[in-house]
Amino acid sequence: MSNYAISIKSVEKKGVLDEITEIITAHNINIAYLNLFIENDFKGSINIELEDVDDINLLIQDLNNLNSVYNVKIYPSQEDVFGKRVIIYGGGAQVSQVALGAITEADRHNIRGERISVDTLPVVGEKPIAEAVNALTRLPRVSVLVLAGSIMGGEIIEEIKKVKSIYDLTVFSLNMPGGVTEVSDLIVTDPIQAGVMAVMQAADTAVFDYRKLDKDNRKF
Amino acid sequence: MSNYAISIKSVEKKGVLDEITEIITAHNINIAYLNLFIENDFKGSINIELEDVDDINLLIQDLNNLNSVYNVKIYPSQEDVFGKRVIIYGGGAQVSQVALGAITEADRHNIRGERISVDTLPVVGEKPIAEAVNALTRLPRVSVLVLAGSIMGGEIIEEIKKVKSIYDLTVFSLNMPGGVTEVSDLIVTDPIQAGVMAVMQAADTAVFDYRKLDKDNRKF
Repeated sequence: MSNYAISIKSVEKKGVLDEITEIITAHNINIAYLNLFIENDFKGSINIELEDVDDINLLIQDLNNLNSVYNVKIYPSQEDVFGKRVIIYGGGAQVSQVALGAITEADRHNIRGERISVDTLPVVGEKPIAEAVNALTRLPRVSVLVLAGSIMGGEIIEEIKKVKSIYDLTVFSLNMPGGVTEVSDLIVTDPIQAGVMAVMQAADTAVFDYRKLDKDNRKF
Repeated sequence: MSNYAISIKSVEKKGVLDEITEIITAHNINIAYLNLFIENDFKGSINIELEDVDDINLLIQDLNNLNSVYNVKIYPSQEDVFGKRVIIYGGGAQVSQVALGAITEADRHNIRGERISVDTLPVVGEKPIAEAVNALTRLPRVSVLVLAGSIMGGEIIEEIKKVKSIYDLTVFSLNMPGGVTEVSDLIVTDPIQAGVMAVMQAADTAVFDYRKLDKDNRKF
């Protein structure tokens, strides 16, 4: 059983996706992620991340037999290409400093064979940040969220609780007023260190894990 | 006709996606992006970005009628939450400096109501970077790619040509040997400026557009 990414070029008409998912389902294969768009030449491009594939060649043969499919190509999965994601939200001077720490640390891990990416949304305001936290339930491969600001609370706290009830998201935050530190797993005062620690938490090649720290010793 | 994101909680069994896409297809609605995972409580979470929706309430009513669906919720689209993506690939000292410029500039645009995110993969080596460039054909909302390194060429050049033949990806690169500058739309020597200019290119609130520059004046 392996994971694959496939890219299907097809005619651009409604119903094609339906035909394709029917075949994948019949092969007892899980779809983890799917993305569609129309190419410059008006062909449809359907990109699918597959899990638990028994016989990829048999699947591709069946997909190629569809009249609406031009060709099917196999690629490395997004997990292989982009790896785990460290996500940074916040605004002003701090968000780029957290990113600086995270990217520099990710570079050091990736050069040793890991794959960690650092995705940043520079955004301010309770509602936009709360919405962006909520959206983490609908993104693949999210490992650690870092909140980089000088005051966060209210709706942001509620959305963090909601996401944490759905999956095991790790949340680090800068030391700040507003209440968000109370729902954070680790509080870090220095923004560069916050970024570095978030990547260390996500990495397989680092020994750091906030869960190994005493509960009353998770603020630096 | 509007765009929406919906999140469907369902029983976790194969075939559910097939039932759902059949209904969406019957409503003549485009699926732009789809992501699935299993929640902590073993329920399935199916998240779909919909385009050209005529009557969202009618669709949700039909989806709720499926035995395998627990509930359907409407959210702002990923375009609304994360906006356009500036993507940065490369390693070492330069990748975090390009990100610093891009994130600081994105913060300035986003505070005025835009939404631009900055996604970074710190990675070195011809093959991993070429694979990551190729993967841009399978990611949504990509606006500008910045290549941040000190030598890039070979397979990376071929993959850039391939992506550009599929959609209108804008590629900025640092000034470097290896040949990659020949397929770049803009060459920028200073990494912070490269990041700033990439975000200005993506932004609606900036006047910068490399296409307005003479072809022999696209190196800074």
